[in-house]
Amino acid sequence: MSDKDTKSKKMIIKKSADFSEWFVQVLINSEFVDYSVVSGCIVFRPSSYFVWDTTRSYIDKKFKEYGIENVYFPLLIPERFLKKEAEHIEGFNPEVAWVTQTGDTKLDEKLAIRPTSEAIMYDSFSKWIHSWRDLPLRFNQWNNVIRWEFKHPTPLLRTREFLWNEGHTVFASKEDAEKERDIILGIYMDILKEYLAIDGIIGEKTQKEKFAGAVSSFSIEHLLPDGKAIQGPDFHLDGQKFAKAFDITFTNREGQKEYVYQNTFAISTRELGTMVAIHSDDKGLVLPPKLAKIQIVIIPIYNDKNKHEIIEYSEKIYNTIKSHFRVYNDIRDEYSPGWKFNEWEIKGSPVRLEVGPKELSEDKVSLVMRHNSRRESIDRGVLKSTLKIALKKIHDDLLNNSHKSLISSIHIVQTYSELKEVIKTGGFAQAPWCGSRECEDKIKDETTMKATNMPFGIQNKAVGKMCIICEIPAKYIVNFAKSY
Amino acid sequence: MSDKDTKSKKMIIKKSADFSEWFVQVLINSEFVDYSVVSGCIVFRPSSYFVWDTTRSYIDKKFKEYGIENVYFPLLIPERFLKKEAEHIEGFNPEVAWVTQTGDTKLDEKLAIRPTSEAIMYDSFSKWIHSWRDLPLRFNQWNNVIRWEFKHPTPLLRTREFLWNEGHTVFASKEDAEKERDIILGIYMDILKEYLAIDGIIGEKTQKEKFAGAVSSFSIEHLLPDGKAIQGPDFHLDGQKFAKAFDITFTNREGQKEYVYQNTFAISTRELGTMVAIHSDDKGLVLPPKLAKIQIVIIPIYNDKNKHEIIEYSEKIYNTIKSHFRVYNDIRDEYSPGWKFNEWEIKGSPVRLEVGPKELSEDKVSLVMRHNSRRESIDRGVLKSTLKIALKKIHDDLLNNSHKSLISSIHIVQTYSELKEVIKTGGFAQAPWCGSRECEDKIKDETTMKATNMPFGIQNKAVGKMCIICEIPAKYIVNFAKSY
Repeated sequence: MSDKDTKSKKMIIKKSADFSEWFVQVLINSEFVDYSVVSGCIVFRPSSYFVWDTTRSYIDKKFKEYGIENVYFPLLIPERFLKKEAEHIEGFNPEVAWVTQTGDTKLDEKLAIRPTSEAIMYDSFSKWIHSWRDLPLRFNQWNNVIRWEFKHPTPLLRTREFLWNEGHTVFASKEDAEKERDIILGIYMDILKEYLAIDGIIGEKTQKEKFAGAVSSFSIEHLLPDGKAIQGPDFHLDGQKFAKAFDITFTNREGQKEYVYQNTFAISTRELGTMVAIHSDDKGLVLPPKLAKIQIVIIPIYNDKNKHEIIEYSEKIYNTIKSHFRVYNDIRDEYSPGWKFNEWEIKGSPVRLEVGPKELSEDKVSLVMRHNSRRESIDRGVLKSTLKIALKKIHDDLLNNSHKSLISSIHIVQTYSELKEVIKTGGFAQAPWCGSRECEDKIKDETTMKATNMPFGIQNKAVGKMCIICEIPAKYIVNFAKSY
Repeated sequence: MSDKDTKSKKMIIKKSADFSEWFVQVLINSEFVDYSVVSGCIVFRPSSYFVWDTTRSYIDKKFKEYGIENVYFPLLIPERFLKKEAEHIEGFNPEVAWVTQTGDTKLDEKLAIRPTSEAIMYDSFSKWIHSWRDLPLRFNQWNNVIRWEFKHPTPLLRTREFLWNEGHTVFASKEDAEKERDIILGIYMDILKEYLAIDGIIGEKTQKEKFAGAVSSFSIEHLLPDGKAIQGPDFHLDGQKFAKAFDITFTNREGQKEYVYQNTFAISTRELGTMVAIHSDDKGLVLPPKLAKIQIVIIPIYNDKNKHEIIEYSEKIYNTIKSHFRVYNDIRDEYSPGWKFNEWEIKGSPVRLEVGPKELSEDKVSLVMRHNSRRESIDRGVLKSTLKIALKKIHDDLLNNSHKSLISSIHIVQTYSELKEVIKTGGFAQAPWCGSRECEDKIKDETTMKATNMPFGIQNKAVGKMCIICEIPAKYIVNFAKSY
């Protein structure tokens, strides 16, 4: 093994010491992702792509059960189409990557690489939709988008290209469109909890922070261990705004022409960054069991004398469990057990099974959980059932930890000075707000805390409270936080 | 229903009269794909995307069983990387779409939208591969690529953006690399026959027609009903050419540095066009049962008096089979049975079940197969098993037809004048060839027929034959054809 091999495996920076440096170190050293030769764009290595593939399959299944169909629209959008909805182009224009030339030929009209696909899809929608019979129309596409941000890029969390789903649905009535919101946010929340093992806060975005072109936006907001918020999946009620810009009309049952109502929604590979940031530790990556490409690694511990029988025992164990879990029996002779422990701890395999002379003589296996380093001695006869329980426990622990740290990061404040206190500790400042753009802007300008969202289920708490800035009666409860 | 709805459903042009016009008519009227606002780029509507999704899942599973891992590399490639392998850039340069500007800022270096990903992946490979222990490395990505061709675009067959898999594998030895060829071509041939129900001819490309940057290329070639050949999936032995351009080396077991050996391989959405062109007819789309989003459509035939009982009977039938097949019970009241027959014939649903008063009274169902219009009366009690057999038969018929027409299109020729005769009939002219570029060029220049490939299994037939051009002893048997 070359020096380079050994060196690349070391975790030096602590999570508590420098979160940003630690985060990049975990991602790169665990071989989860890598930098690429294109500034701000990363490579998804097999471990991270497996997470995305698995996440995607699950969401895709849920979408299909609800009646969504997959489609694929072109990557490139002619400039004049991107410009059709005024707020939309205003929001995306500074981040658009433009194709201006093909081969040696200059194009007559610039083509945008999609930052999102409204502007290319909705021209087709206007051709395809004629009658109430064509509605609802529920489409989704899994693709790549480019948003050429100039802020400091961070792997997964802020990259210039990312992968996502973009759902685009069309309805005959406002009510039908609005009914979809909780279905989609429910599917997203479900994947976050059941697969990524992370919790988030569902709520409505303020008008300032909504999607460029939407009537209202909804999001799931997470908190990273550095005390900053990060937006997760979102859902947008677009009303008739795009319908009017792209002339998407239908003839209703009474024979009259009407504009349609539209929604859009997305989850992106940014979520993988959030997941890694929340679960991982000073030893490296921690992956939830459902998303780990290798869930269980077997490490035989032997010397020259007992090598044969120990390896044989490890293979017996491998064969017992291989059809039930994603297992790797690490019998590579050129690496020591200590090197392998370190390697698999960095890579985040949820369970390590150690198999040495003691285990062999007792017909047992030593099980070590990655996320809490706890060790147990297991009778080989109950290994399969014990592993099932262990993987479930790991998932539950991770989700529970994420939930607890999210809840404990919410600071309920009643005054502007209380809100400013939260800057020191990090986390959410949950504050009453009058709803005016002026007050929201003041907080952003003076504290750099932005309105993440207005959580569902607690908006009634605004009654009787005063806006923390202008002190008139509050209309909303907002979670303010420094954000990615 | 508006005039537009009715009109769009008509199939006017016959396959035999004008293949190109017929082909576009089938694709658009069946709502399989649509034109987009970007010249040369199409929209994959749910019916075609379902075909691609299903195809992709199957291949992905086979790839994983063989040990290939999925990854994702950036869409954009800096110009200097695309230029690293000389033949590669020469081959792709005229077709590259260049990003030169982001927002209002001009970029220092142009970025190519990937026409293929060698130039962005192999820089990472060179960083990741150090030792023989890191090999073989078998990666694949499912993505979109852009090749801005200026030839007349045809939906699916020649589009400026398409979807594909790109497999990139790395080996320590030439022998290991070469062993992979038949595994991958086998997987591709399998999906073509077992899912798309089309046959093709496997063989090696000539040096003139090989992939830009490869040492040798292999392809599966199809024949379209207009007598022109079209290339299907391909596989390339890249030898050490990219390894030398991108400095991809490893330390072998003896401690010496060596360049790696690489392969690449791909199947694209072009294959969907080939499938549609081969199977479909004057009534519209014909889809093989495994790839039809709706395999079976039930059409109840009723009047005002018996409506209730007929619809009830159709629902009974629907409930009997819905968990075994992809079924749609078309009980839409606003369309006549005749309109529905036409609609589902255009859309290519493999089986139609008619349910009217006669069927109800006899406890039967009338089954009509899309591909041959054959009608059968089926006892309801054996419907499920009959449908299974019918779908299998449809698949087998389609594959068999494809096989027969492929075989009958191969014309064995011994002279140049015999080859020229094949221009009139279309199809492949299978000719002995000396192996020289001059003879190959002469045929291409004078007849526009190109060397599609040199079929496996018949190369021994070159022995004792003379090249049809220069009349020296032949080395190869080549299938020449006019091609897409």
